[in-house]
This record gives sequence, C-alpha cells and structure tokens, in this order.
Amino acid sequence: MTGVAQAPVYNRIALIGLGLIASSMFWAIQRGGLAGEVTGYARSQATRDTARRIGLTDRVCDTAAEAVAGADLVVLAVPVGAMAAVAAEIAPHLAKGATVTDVGSVKRSVIESVGPHLPEGVHFIPGHPLAGTEHSGPESGFATLFDNRWCLLVPVEGTDPQATARLRALWEGIGSNVEEMDADHHDLVLAVTSHTPHLIAYTMVGVADDLGRVTDGEVIKYSAAGFRDFTRIAASDPTMWRDVFLTNKDATLEILGRFTEELFALQRAIRTGDGDHLFDYFTRTRAIRRGIIEAGQDTAAPDFGRTPQVSKS
Amino acid sequence: MTGVAQAPVYNRIALIGLGLIASSMFWAIQRGGLAGEVTGYARSQATRDTARRIGLTDRVCDTAAEAVAGADLVVLAVPVGAMAAVAAEIAPHLAKGATVTDVGSVKRSVIESVGPHLPEGVHFIPGHPLAGTEHSGPESGFATLFDNRWCLLVPVEGTDPQATARLRALWEGIGSNVEEMDADHHDLVLAVTSHTPHLIAYTMVGVADDLGRVTDGEVIKYSAAGFRDFTRIAASDPTMWRDVFLTNKDATLEILGRFTEELFALQRAIRTGDGDHLFDYFTRTRAIRRGIIEAGQDTAAPDFGRTPQVSKS
Repeated sequence: MTGVAQAPVYNRIALIGLGLIASSMFWAIQRGGLAGEVTGYARSQATRDTARRIGLTDRVCDTAAEAVAGADLVVLAVPVGAMAAVAAEIAPHLAKGATVTDVGSVKRSVIESVGPHLPEGVHFIPGHPLAGTEHSGPESGFATLFDNRWCLLVPVEGTDPQATARLRALWEGIGSNVEEMDADHHDLVLAVTSHTPHLIAYTMVGVADDLGRVTDGEVIKYSAAGFRDFTRIAASDPTMWRDVFLTNKDATLEILGRFTEELFALQRAIRTGDGDHLFDYFTRTRAIRRGIIEAGQDTAAPDFGRTPQVSKS
Repeated sequence: MTGVAQAPVYNRIALIGLGLIASSMFWAIQRGGLAGEVTGYARSQATRDTARRIGLTDRVCDTAAEAVAGADLVVLAVPVGAMAAVAAEIAPHLAKGATVTDVGSVKRSVIESVGPHLPEGVHFIPGHPLAGTEHSGPESGFATLFDNRWCLLVPVEGTDPQATARLRALWEGIGSNVEEMDADHHDLVLAVTSHTPHLIAYTMVGVADDLGRVTDGEVIKYSAAGFRDFTRIAASDPTMWRDVFLTNKDATLEILGRFTEELFALQRAIRTGDGDHLFDYFTRTRAIRRGIIEAGQDTAAPDFGRTPQVSKS
C-alpha cells in the first residue's frame, strides 16, 4: 500500500496547523499521490515562512479561510484547545460536501467544541493517528511516521458512510491501519496507553530535575537506565499535552486514581519487605509485554534494537 | 579502545552467575583479549548446559568453588539478594591477592552483605555497569552492551589503589567509561535515574493490565504511544528488581515520596483546570532532555531513531 503512487483520494486537502502531524501527513500524501493539491496554513508567520522554505504543502496560505476554500478535505492539526477557534474561523469558508477531520489526542472534547461550528452539508469525522515523536514543528515531519500505525476514526452519529470510507482510504494510503471507535471509549483507552504515562513521565523528570541541581548534573549524566525513556516522553510538546489533560480530565483522573492506589500497594511492600508481592507483580507485568510483541505492536529486539549488536564470533 | 585485542588485564576471571550482564562481559572480554581464561558458574544446571552449548566462558564449572579457584578476578553477577550466600560459598576458595567485584544495582547493601565474608588479602571493589536490556539469561548477552556506557566503581575504605586501577582497566577495555563514587551517593542517584522509574513503569503496566482485560486487548493493541516504553522497562527481570527495591529501600521510598507529592500537584492542576501550571511544568521537563542530549548521553533522533525515516524528496 505505501510508497506507491495511487489515484488521488481528494482533489484538495487543507492542512490547518503545520506541526509534526500535519507535516508528516503532507510528506506521506505526496509520497502516495493521494491529493490533487495540498494547501497549508499555520497561525505563526515564522511557521508559514519555514513551510514555504522547505516546500511543506503545495501552497502555503496566509489565512485559514484561503486554505480551506475549495478543499474537499480539511484537517485540523492544532492543539485540542485551539480547535474551537479554528473551527469558528473556517466554518463560513467551507465548501458544500467537504469533510472536516482532526488529529487531536482527545475526541469527546473535540466533538463538543468543533461540531457546533460546522454548517449543514459538511461531514465531520474526528480522527486520531496513534503516532508521534517527541519533536514538534514544521520541520519535524517525515513521510513514514504513520506506516503500520493505528489511526482511529470516531464518526459521530449520522455520519455519511461514504465520507468515512473516503477518509479511511486516505489514512490507509498514508500507511496506517484504520479502526473506528466510540469517542468516550477512545478517551479512556488513550488515558491508559498514552495520557497517564505521559503525565507520570513528566512528573518523574520534574523530580529528577530538582535533585539534579543538588547532585550537580549526575542525574542527567547517569540517565541511561530507565530514566532515559521517561525524558524522551517528557520532551513532548507542552501546549499539546496541557490541552490533552485539560480536555481528557475525567478519564485521566480515573486512571491516575488507579495508578496511585497500585503504587501505594507496591510502596507498602517495599517498606514492609514483602518480596513475594513485588516478585509476583513484576512477573505479571513482564507477561504483558510478551502480549504486545505477540500482537505485532513491537519488536522483541532488546532495548527496541537501539543498542547495536554485533556477532559474537 | 574497543574492538581491538589488548594485553590481558587478568590471568583468570571467574564469572559467578551467567545472565545478561555476565554473558555480555564475557563476549566483551573475549573481543578485547582482556583475560587469559574466563571461567563461569551458574546455580542452575539448565543455565550451565546452555552456557556450554553456546561457548559462554572458556570453562563452565559445576561449582562456584571450582570456578573461583586460581582466579585473580571474581565477578559476582547474581541478584543482589543472592550476593551474601555466594560470597560465603566462595570465600574459602579465593586466591590470595584476588579481587572480588560485583555488578549489582545497589551498593550499600552489597558492601554490607558481601564484605564480612571475604578473607584478609582479598580486594573487594564493588561495581555497577549502567547498562542492560529488558532481556535476561545466558543467551541475552552481547559484546557491545557496555560500549560508551558508564561503569561506577565504589571502592570501600582502605582499598588498594592498584587493584582499583586494574579493575578500571578491565572495564575500559570492555568499552565503558569508569567513574568512582561513594556507595550511599550511588544508591540515591540510581534511585532517581533507574529504580523509581522502574517501579513506576511496573505500576502503570499493572494498571493497564487490569483495564486491558476489560477492554479486550485494546490496551495492548494501541500501546504505541507512551505506554510502549513503560512495557519495555516493566519487562525486566523480576528477581533482580525485587532485590533492588528490598535493598535500596530508603532511597527508593524517599524518591517515591517526592514523586507522589509532585504528581498530586499536577493532578490538582488537572482537576482545577490550571493550564498554566501544566504548561510551565512540561516546558521545564522538556529542557532537561536537551541537557541529556547535550551531555552526550542520548541521541536527538526522534523516538531514539526507532521510527524509520526516509528522504522527503
């Protein structure tokens, strides 16, 4: 599917916001020949200048209105907290029959903040590609970001199945595996697999930072073991993540509650010297990783294959 | 330094325990020609059989006593909780003037449990290579595991500087950068950079596992974002980590206390909708990762270079 030029799925795609996700989408759309034209808009002049310099989108526009004019697909790729304002801004300029989608990490909030702004005759199909890196901005994108990753579509009630099928075809052309899911269920699953882990990583790095000042950089120097993964996660875009937690509040607080409950049980086992409790717990969590590898979602290579291995002979 | 045959640093090295660390040490010692002979011992018959089959050590022994006889370096590479018993077992068989070291993740506890067993005239120099993967066992080792990683030596009071220099030369030959550190300081730094992050990852994976049963595997299916790093960390050897937490109890509980304090502050910011607090916190943690990259401890490649990147043109 990927890497091969295909018939365009849309005549004109407008990317609103030109960060990691939108720029990666553009390179993948270009790779696959999936659109007749791709327009782009970013609020910041500096981002638009960069986009023009590196050829990010076929035509960078100075207003969102200009970017969406005549587009049969509009992709909202801005932080979740900025979705409502962008939707209000573009609504009068949307073409009849156009599809509007988004790439936000939270879905219920986006449905509530974007949906009411869109006019009759426009299809609104929220989406969420489960892919990213810790980098952000227009220069961080690359065509293979979505290859073999999930993209979740969250159609609202009454969505035209044909419009959904077309959006699915785009994401498949981009390289993703597409599934449909209910918005509330999406927000709970992502609270577990992404949002709460990010908050925890942010917290641990903050704690280490405090201590790092005391120990004069040693925490950074010796970060290879375990902490390194946390620092990568905690380097993600602050605006995006602020909005995720503010808009997926209930599910995040629910999972955080479970997390602290379990953490306190382990902490108590450490304090009381209950080695059996710790051993059983760690054995159980080891098994879940095997499940992930068996599900084809990860590699069994040690340290994700990051540590170079050479022949032993 | 690495990859080039050198003059042997020791005549005979005995590896007690043949898991990830000891097996990687052997391949690196062999690569560098750092020992005249390497003997190996593991408590389990199955591990000894595997070691013989794959040529792990020059001579696999059926008792620890046999392995250490005549060795001028003995490496204790067993879980921290097993160190005392092993030390007692080998003590009568140690050669006069031999050096005993270990590779445990906790140092104060090892000093207290191993030191008293060792006879006069034997040098005891605790050590800790900061390297590993989530895999364990005799077949998980590889020669490059320690390349450009830190190895911390924790000499106890009165240690012969010449014996320390010789052990340092071995680890440098293996590929590591060596530093010396006080035992208590080591245990605190590692509680921040490794032990507490591991406990947190174990906890988060446990929570997800509970929920995974409810949502029929979706937590695993959609684990790419954030949670994936946690599952890798939480797949580490259960025995080793049980012992780490039981033996580095005070430092781990201290850091856990700071962690939950900060987590509750962020949780409160989510509950009250304090976006500024979240944004400022996430901006601060992003900066610490830049420090790690600038310190040469990591790559700036997105997602550690795991996501394949292709040319955009």
